[in-house]
Amino acid sequence: MTGSSPPGAPHAFPKRVLGVSMPPIDALNTRMAQMNAAGGDVISLGQSVPFFGPPPRMIEAVRDALDSFGPRLHTYGPDAGIPELRHALARKLADFNGIEVDPDSQIMVTPGSNQAFMVTMMTILQPGDEVAIASPCYFSHHMAIELCGGVVREIPLGEESGFQMRMEEVERVLTPRTRAVVITSPNNPTGAVYDPGEVALMVRELTARGVYVVSDEAYEVFCYDGAKHVSPASLVDDAELVISLGSLSKTFGMTGWRIGYIAASAEVCRQAVKVQDAMAICAPIVCQVAAVAALDHMPAYPLGMMGEMKDRRRMLDAMLSETPALSWEKTHGAFFVMLRADVELDGRDTAWEMLERVGVLTVPGGAFGEQWSGFIRVSFGSPPRDRYEEALSRMASFFGVHARR
Amino acid sequence: MTGSSPPGAPHAFPKRVLGVSMPPIDALNTRMAQMNAAGGDVISLGQSVPFFGPPPRMIEAVRDALDSFGPRLHTYGPDAGIPELRHALARKLADFNGIEVDPDSQIMVTPGSNQAFMVTMMTILQPGDEVAIASPCYFSHHMAIELCGGVVREIPLGEESGFQMRMEEVERVLTPRTRAVVITSPNNPTGAVYDPGEVALMVRELTARGVYVVSDEAYEVFCYDGAKHVSPASLVDDAELVISLGSLSKTFGMTGWRIGYIAASAEVCRQAVKVQDAMAICAPIVCQVAAVAALDHMPAYPLGMMGEMKDRRRMLDAMLSETPALSWEKTHGAFFVMLRADVELDGRDTAWEMLERVGVLTVPGGAFGEQWSGFIRVSFGSPPRDRYEEALSRMASFFGVHARR
Repeated sequence: MTGSSPPGAPHAFPKRVLGVSMPPIDALNTRMAQMNAAGGDVISLGQSVPFFGPPPRMIEAVRDALDSFGPRLHTYGPDAGIPELRHALARKLADFNGIEVDPDSQIMVTPGSNQAFMVTMMTILQPGDEVAIASPCYFSHHMAIELCGGVVREIPLGEESGFQMRMEEVERVLTPRTRAVVITSPNNPTGAVYDPGEVALMVRELTARGVYVVSDEAYEVFCYDGAKHVSPASLVDDAELVISLGSLSKTFGMTGWRIGYIAASAEVCRQAVKVQDAMAICAPIVCQVAAVAALDHMPAYPLGMMGEMKDRRRMLDAMLSETPALSWEKTHGAFFVMLRADVELDGRDTAWEMLERVGVLTVPGGAFGEQWSGFIRVSFGSPPRDRYEEALSRMASFFGVHARR
Repeated sequence: MTGSSPPGAPHAFPKRVLGVSMPPIDALNTRMAQMNAAGGDVISLGQSVPFFGPPPRMIEAVRDALDSFGPRLHTYGPDAGIPELRHALARKLADFNGIEVDPDSQIMVTPGSNQAFMVTMMTILQPGDEVAIASPCYFSHHMAIELCGGVVREIPLGEESGFQMRMEEVERVLTPRTRAVVITSPNNPTGAVYDPGEVALMVRELTARGVYVVSDEAYEVFCYDGAKHVSPASLVDDAELVISLGSLSKTFGMTGWRIGYIAASAEVCRQAVKVQDAMAICAPIVCQVAAVAALDHMPAYPLGMMGEMKDRRRMLDAMLSETPALSWEKTHGAFFVMLRADVELDGRDTAWEMLERVGVLTVPGGAFGEQWSGFIRVSFGSPPRDRYEEALSRMASFFGVHARR
């Protein structure tokens, strides 16, 4: 917990800030913009943004609200969210997730689920408390835990098991200081959907020991090949120690509207709302109004996109079967995959090299932990269909040329 | 920095969270809602929300964006804000504040300026670092500093000086661990506009010692009687250690749209953007589009509201001159005042008692520090004009009856 240099000196930023580097996706995006500005033609398979936008009815609802919502649209709402949205989320949690919550005391709307994670960490962590997360892991979780004074304990997952998280592996990193274990299923970056039985086991074991289960369910609708997402809070009678984080961003193609939520015990929410009051105060009302309208289309709207997602996934699989330099231990959720890249390149990272040589942007595996630097994360769900097809053919040619002999 | 109980135990929340209580405005608002639901007729002079809404052209711009902004409206933007807004803010900072910043590297848009303060504290504080803030102080600043592991040092200000903050008083609380001094002028809750010469002195002295000056300028447009707001960053050649926080909330009557900003050195912004990436990622695009349109009306739009604000302030002054139980050491900014209440009441707080007996909501002075419990904060800028007049007459009658003899 000590910083890198004495206070008072200019730019002596705390280690918890200096220590984190911007996710490389940022540097890659900057380079992509440069290349495109110089007449290049880069296709991004880097972002975790779905190919579709929000339901048209959502846009209409916002337009209606501009006309008729009155002064409420323009002024602070309740810290925990407008009642309409909390009730809509409670219905969605009951119908889709099998979680029963009281909309008045057990839901808090946040400006995005990334902020929901940060608020949660700030609410439950004492400085020095440990939080166990899967590796490879989503970099924002790592940063948030450290920014809140917590200590990250990584649970190394195996490629050979399809990056499944199991109680057996979790067990190995638990200590008396473990405050929470984060379960992200479907997973970012691996796409793994954890086995429901194993999730149930983890939830029972962990909560019995007084450890919080923080479940990040941002990709809950995106499951393939019969894989089934289960919400940890739906699996136990006493969900006092389960904190469910959700997002409308991917489900409704509305990442730019920044609406997420925390569903938890009334006591956690009572504490978390204080943290929210010292941060965003409340999510913007116009975005909350949009979210209410989007939720009217749950789950039909996102499920209607799954045919296209499945197609793209099959096309990826076909390309991989003809590209020996790339291998994928098949996972069954989200809309990206971690691919092992067996290539001969002098020095530079595969993702950077592919960007420069064939104009396809992916995320270097090293962004998710150093030991994953032999991988790239590829999003099959983001670009327009024709651009996606073009990207696949460029990838095939790049990995054909640079395959390790 | 140690917590209240060992980790692992349910509900052993950290002291930094348990230790903060929700601002009493929340409990008062809840009670007001109850009273109104039961047929009551409560007028709120409690919130720091102006009586006016955003410029009509802003609403039109949002409507246009729904039609024509395309997919960019629905997906993540750059963490630091969309370029259009950063450029509009840079122009506003140059024209209105006399601050020259590079829009590409020295501005970061945040979901509200409250979050700008939190991001700033998380960016610059090492655990245990001290931050000096004026007392009476805005409760969210207090909470944010503690949530980030910092230690609050209060600078007690005198009612008799109109709550002016002076280097002499700041000096008394500085220690080798002082990392930042917060200057909020026009001030919340006192309405004080700090003397420009004194602000210049504080900025020079503090930055020379390597202490950050964090300037919260949310009420910059609201000045009366010739008082002049100055931006600390405009007063020194080397503004490396000055961090300016701004908000569009009060200026444009758009508190519900949650747009604020940080203007600072490129180095501070480079670090702060990492913190933002782990929290909100970016402010919602639709709100940023709205903000661009609002800034087209700077400063004409808010200045056009000042005639009404001045009228209301004069009416308050007239009421006070006939109400001996209330006294005001005149301040010259924002749209609220801290009034000393000399009353005879058994036990309960003046603000609560006034709410129950005459249906006028104000904020208890104790919310801004225990030593201010003999005061109430009254907003003259919030309710519709006729409701405001009614509230003043109710207050006059309440303080007539309960004046200490």
